Amino acid sequence: MRKIAAVTAFLDDNHRAKITETAARCGFEVDFYHGDMLPEEKAAEYEVIFGMPKRRCLKSMTNLKWFCASFAGVDSVVDDKYYPNPDVLLTNSAGAYGTTIAEHIIMVTLMLLRRMPDFQQIVRERRWVQSLPMRSIQGSTITVLGTGDIGTNFARRAKAMGAAKIYGVRRSKKAGDPCYDAIYTHDELNEVLPKTEILVMALPSTPDTIGILSRERIALLPPEAIVVNVGRGTAIDQEALMEALNAERIAGAALDVMVPEPLPIDHPLWETKNLLLTPHISGNMSLPLTRDKDVDMFCEDLENYAAGRPLLRLVDRKRGY
Amino acid sequence: MRKIAAVTAFLDDNHRAKITETAARCGFEVDFYHGDMLPEEKAAEYEVIFGMPKRRCLKSMTNLKWFCASFAGVDSVVDDKYYPNPDVLLTNSAGAYGTTIAEHIIMVTLMLLRRMPDFQQIVRERRWVQSLPMRSIQGSTITVLGTGDIGTNFARRAKAMGAAKIYGVRRSKKAGDPCYDAIYTHDELNEVLPKTEILVMALPSTPDTIGILSRERIALLPPEAIVVNVGRGTAIDQEALMEALNAERIAGAALDVMVPEPLPIDHPLWETKNLLLTPHISGNMSLPLTRDKDVDMFCEDLENYAAGRPLLRLVDRKRGY
Repeated sequence: MRKIAAVTAFLDDNHRAKITETAARCGFEVDFYHGDMLPEEKAAEYEVIFGMPKRRCLKSMTNLKWFCASFAGVDSVVDDKYYPNPDVLLTNSAGAYGTTIAEHIIMVTLMLLRRMPDFQQIVRERRWVQSLPMRSIQGSTITVLGTGDIGTNFARRAKAMGAAKIYGVRRSKKAGDPCYDAIYTHDELNEVLPKTEILVMALPSTPDTIGILSRERIALLPPEAIVVNVGRGTAIDQEALMEALNAERIAGAALDVMVPEPLPIDHPLWETKNLLLTPHISGNMSLPLTRDKDVDMFCEDLENYAAGRPLLRLVDRKRGY
Repeated sequence: MRKIAAVTAFLDDNHRAKITETAARCGFEVDFYHGDMLPEEKAAEYEVIFGMPKRRCLKSMTNLKWFCASFAGVDSVVDDKYYPNPDVLLTNSAGAYGTTIAEHIIMVTLMLLRRMPDFQQIVRERRWVQSLPMRSIQGSTITVLGTGDIGTNFARRAKAMGAAKIYGVRRSKKAGDPCYDAIYTHDELNEVLPKTEILVMALPSTPDTIGILSRERIALLPPEAIVVNVGRGTAIDQEALMEALNAERIAGAALDVMVPEPLPIDHPLWETKNLLLTPHISGNMSLPLTRDKDVDMFCEDLENYAAGRPLLRLVDRKRGY
C-alpha cells in the first residue's frame, strides 16, 4: 500500500476524515502524527508527506516523492540538501492565508493610522485624552509589494474601504487584479515609493526579494509613510528601518516577520519607536478557515498526484517559490 | 448685518475661507472663536452658531435662531432649557463620521477576533507565543444595531470583507442599504441576538435606545459574541455587560462610549476582562476627512437656511435625534 504521513498538530476529526477518504480513493493509506516529527524507523515507508514536519525528517524519507507543505513561505525547505534526492516534488499552501493575513494587515494599518498603541497606553494609565491626530485608509495611496493571494486579498479590502490609489508591484508587468490602479515591476519600485503612504510587503523570500526594501529605498518614502511587512523579514534592511523609525523619518511600521525569529530578548526591534511588532502570527493556523482550506488544497492536489496530473502549487525549488 | 459665530477649535484656514465666502454670499458675517466659548457681551449678536460651544453659551444668545452642531450625537443639547426660546433650530452633523467610526469598528473588531491585546501583552513581555486561536470577519454573522450613516458604513466594509450575514436592526422595517441581508426592528432584537457573533451598536441616545442592550438581552448572546459600542454608553446595561465579560459568558467587547465619561479613575470598567476601552475617540475631529465634511455640511445647510429651504440635518428635539 502506498503511504502518506500527515505530520501536523492542527487537524481536527473532520480534516482527518477528509484526508483519509481522499487518500483511500486514490489508493493511499494515511498515518497521522500530531506534532512535527515522525518516527525514524517509519520514515522510509512514506511516498508523500503533508504538513509542517521538522526539516530533518525529510532526509530520512528515502522513498519520498512529494512534500506538501501546509504553509506558504517554503524558503526554509527549498534546498536540495534537505531531501533524499533532488526529484522530490515540493508544493506549498499559497492561497490558504489570503483572508487571515489580509485581515491582519487591515488591522495593523488602522492601528497605526488611528494611533491605537498610543490610545491603549493612555487607557492603561487610566487617562482620558482624545486629541491625537488620525489618518484613514479612505483616500490613502497604497503600494502592495507582492501581488499574490495575500497582497491582493488585502488590496481588495483596502479598495472597498475607499483607498484613493492602490499600486501593485510585482516581478513582471502582466496585468494584475482589477483592484490595482496600476502595476509596476520591481525595477520601477523607486518611482512608486515617494508617493506611497502605506507600503504593504507580502513577498516570499527569494534571491530577488532579499533586501528589496534597502536603506536607499527606505529613504525614498515620504515622512507620512507606514510600512507593513507580512512576508519575510529578509525583504527589509532592518537596521535602516529601525533608524528611520527612531528618527521619525517615516510615520510607523508593523512587522509580523523579522530577522531573526524568534526575536532575541535583547534585540533593539522590541524598543523601536512607532513599531507594532507581532510574533509571526498573521498567517498561522489559528483561523479555522485557513486550516480547512489547507486540507482542501492538499486533497485536491492528492487527486492530481494520484492521477498523474500536474500539481497546482508546485514550487520551483531553484527559484524558491 | 446678520451674524454667525463659529465656535470650534478644529477649523483650518481653508475651512474659515469656505465658511466666510458662503456666509457672505448668503448675507452673513462670521466671527471665529478658537475654543468652546464666546464672549458674554457678544452673545446677543448672533443669529447662527456653528461648532461645539459650551452648552451655557446658548442660553445667553437671545437672538439665536439656528444651532448647527459640528457633532452627530446631540442628546446633550436637545432640551429646551438650554435655549433662549423653544423655536431655535438644531441641526447635527450626522454623516460626517461614517468613515472614521466605521474604520474604528473594523479595527477593534479585528483586534478582538485576532486576540491582538493578548499578543501585544506577549510582545511587551518580549515573549514569542503564536498559538492563540483566532477568528475572522469573513464568514461571521454580524448584527448592526442602528443602521444610520455609521452602522451602514461599517456594514458595507464588513460585507466587502466576506461577512456571512449582516442583519440591520432599526426602528422601522423600511428597506435598508443593500449590504444588509435582512432588516429587523427593535422589537425583533431578541430573535437576532442568539445568532449574533459580532454585535455593533451605533445608536443615538434617545428614550427608545437607553438601556436597549439590557441584562436579559446580553444573556441572549452566544458565548462567542463580541459587542462593539460606538453610539452612546447609555444604550447598554453596563453593569450586566461587565459581569458577562468577567464571567466569560461572552467573548469580548470594545467600548468607545460608556457611562460616565470621562471614566473615573477607580471605575471597574478599566479592569474588565476581554474589554478593549477607548476614550470616545472613534468619531472625533481627528480625521481631516471628518473636519472637511463637517464644514461642507454646515455651508450646504447655511445656503438652505438663507434661502428659507428646509435644513437637511434638522433634529427633532423632542425625539432627540
